Amino acid sequence: MSDNLDLIRELSLPTTSKIVLVVLDGLGGLPSLKTGKTELETAKKPNLDRLASRGMCGLVDPVAPGITPGSAPGHLALFGYDPLKFKVGRGVLEAMGIDFELGPGDVAARGNFCTVDEAGRVTDRRAGRISTEKCAELARLLDGLLIEGVKVLVRPVKEHRFVAVFRGEGLDHRLGDSDPQQTGVTPKTVTALSTQAGRTADIANQFVVQAKKALAGHHPANMVLLRGFSGRPELPTVREMYKLKSAAISGYPMYRGLARLVGMEVIETGPSVREEFLTLKQNYGSYDFFFVHVKGADAAGEDGDFERKVRVIEEVDDSMPLITSVNPDVVVVTGDHSTPARLKGHSWHPVPVLLYGRYCRPDRVKGFSESAAVSGGLGRIAATSIMPLAMANALKLTKYGA
Amino acid sequence: MSDNLDLIRELSLPTTSKIVLVVLDGLGGLPSLKTGKTELETAKKPNLDRLASRGMCGLVDPVAPGITPGSAPGHLALFGYDPLKFKVGRGVLEAMGIDFELGPGDVAARGNFCTVDEAGRVTDRRAGRISTEKCAELARLLDGLLIEGVKVLVRPVKEHRFVAVFRGEGLDHRLGDSDPQQTGVTPKTVTALSTQAGRTADIANQFVVQAKKALAGHHPANMVLLRGFSGRPELPTVREMYKLKSAAISGYPMYRGLARLVGMEVIETGPSVREEFLTLKQNYGSYDFFFVHVKGADAAGEDGDFERKVRVIEEVDDSMPLITSVNPDVVVVTGDHSTPARLKGHSWHPVPVLLYGRYCRPDRVKGFSESAAVSGGLGRIAATSIMPLAMANALKLTKYGA
Repeated sequence: MSDNLDLIRELSLPTTSKIVLVVLDGLGGLPSLKTGKTELETAKKPNLDRLASRGMCGLVDPVAPGITPGSAPGHLALFGYDPLKFKVGRGVLEAMGIDFELGPGDVAARGNFCTVDEAGRVTDRRAGRISTEKCAELARLLDGLLIEGVKVLVRPVKEHRFVAVFRGEGLDHRLGDSDPQQTGVTPKTVTALSTQAGRTADIANQFVVQAKKALAGHHPANMVLLRGFSGRPELPTVREMYKLKSAAISGYPMYRGLARLVGMEVIETGPSVREEFLTLKQNYGSYDFFFVHVKGADAAGEDGDFERKVRVIEEVDDSMPLITSVNPDVVVVTGDHSTPARLKGHSWHPVPVLLYGRYCRPDRVKGFSESAAVSGGLGRIAATSIMPLAMANALKLTKYGA
Repeated sequence: MSDNLDLIRELSLPTTSKIVLVVLDGLGGLPSLKTGKTELETAKKPNLDRLASRGMCGLVDPVAPGITPGSAPGHLALFGYDPLKFKVGRGVLEAMGIDFELGPGDVAARGNFCTVDEAGRVTDRRAGRISTEKCAELARLLDGLLIEGVKVLVRPVKEHRFVAVFRGEGLDHRLGDSDPQQTGVTPKTVTALSTQAGRTADIANQFVVQAKKALAGHHPANMVLLRGFSGRPELPTVREMYKLKSAAISGYPMYRGLARLVGMEVIETGPSVREEFLTLKQNYGSYDFFFVHVKGADAAGEDGDFERKVRVIEEVDDSMPLITSVNPDVVVVTGDHSTPARLKGHSWHPVPVLLYGRYCRPDRVKGFSESAAVSGGLGRIAATSIMPLAMANALKLTKYGA
């Protein structure tokens, strides 16, 4: 997999045409052992089928054949960025998951409240999965510590999970974890993985010492573990790359965060598919690119709930007229990866994609499905090709070479 | 074409699941002008058709579209190694072809016994294709020469062909050929292609001088020509890359040699397909990856014998139950390249592949054939994607990125 960012940057033109990218998180599936049909093939979805029939279909590899992508690489690839080149660290992703806006020099880490014994050895890496309320209370205890001029912002996530963000001058995120990933041993000292990161390692270790003191009376959550230190990756923006005024619509913070990383503007919306699509319709005049993210398909897949995933797809189909009624020049519907209910998790299976636009060369595919997409006009392509294809179909790319 | 070795190394997990890779050498073909069917399409092969129908099919490019691969690049690609990055020299390949185990510092060359006239000019590059027995006798004459502490091991191959292996400290294989590839001229002096190879060039030239003396009375085989000086390439092993305990089963030495290059363990077997598959069955408990190589299809193709190639495929089909009866988690059947009987040689045509496993997403292909594979669910993929796909389907790859 690779991207053609420099080429696209050179060829892209600002125009008045509009592109809508609908991402059904975890869209691709596997056939039910009873019916032989996938979630997508089981869903009643006349609107999506009509778009597929009038447009082109294909199958997409988010990272490479055989590779199961996390949400970050899956989305970066859809936005046209090589996911093997641009990486989003665990700490940054966790911060995005709670809508925490990271600044350029911030260093974020994923934290666990954990339990240690008198000798300081970890006995439970998750502190018995304390409640989210307890987590919030403890995070407040640690939040705002000032160490050598660096402020440590601590925010609760869920149960034992929190985010620690180090904010100050001259920080470097190239640090090893303190989380030993096992019990029976003491937490590791945070080490610098680069000569420039020495001071940041020092500060992180001081934070851990102070946190331990502050948590002394809060057994089982009497210590912290930090991992995935990372800084906001430097990505060229969608505006630079594509000359697009872009909007992100997502009920879930992590996807808003991923969209912000590439410079999209986030529009407030409600949690349902209908509300998201309505938000698009209401803001249609103000942007020329919309990324709309539907979480439910992935969540149902992760739960192994085939029927619920089918219903999410049907819900999307029901609301599609909110999008098609405004007549976007190009509509793309796909996923960031597959999440088959049978596997209860992300998978490596290529993701079906449909691309509809006035100038696409229609294929013989008559409905939106994994098995039909195999013979679609788009073939089997890298996810990083989707944006160039959408741009081309919206007549937003000029000729390469004389 | 490229590989994702670093990525795979990072994501691969040791598990108890098992993968079988069956390589029918030269599998891909061209239609008979009489029937319009290829060798594979002509063969009666109910077992392979059933696997194809329950699994996924596709077409594989070993190196790149239009490129006809030799056996070494064809196999390296199937093992997941970019054949444009990792190269196996002629000398090394020739040594592997006679099961000669090269050490890390050895320099191997392909040799010809040839005829020279009184002026030293080559009159026959193959010495009238002397018998293999004669070749063995002459090789014994030259074997074991010691030059400046470097031992020269000389082994007969077939007819006029032999292998010369230089073994000693500080050798460098970057040498030009002595074989002028034409008659009427004297053999070339071996030259160093790198400043570090000067001493090795010297030793090679001394060997040629001594060989000429030793062969003086053996007209027509009164001289040697050397070409393809090469050392064993450094390849990451299958165990490092995939965390696999792997076994190679092949009746032919060259393929055992290629498997050894990537660290596979070679299991002894008989020459027939049935014996090879039986060897797999008997050793099934001891490994989690099996590479089984079937030579006959390529040999028949090279001979232009369409019918014999059909029979080899039928023989494989007959023996498939030996493999399927042990229920491997993933079975892949493909070739290292095409060898259409009509072309009597390797060709550039993409090779059909079938991948069967519990978690594959079945396509609409109902039999194993080149023309059906065009619309298979795997699409047209690089051969280097086969191992990642097999690994993914065996649940041996963890997620990439958060």
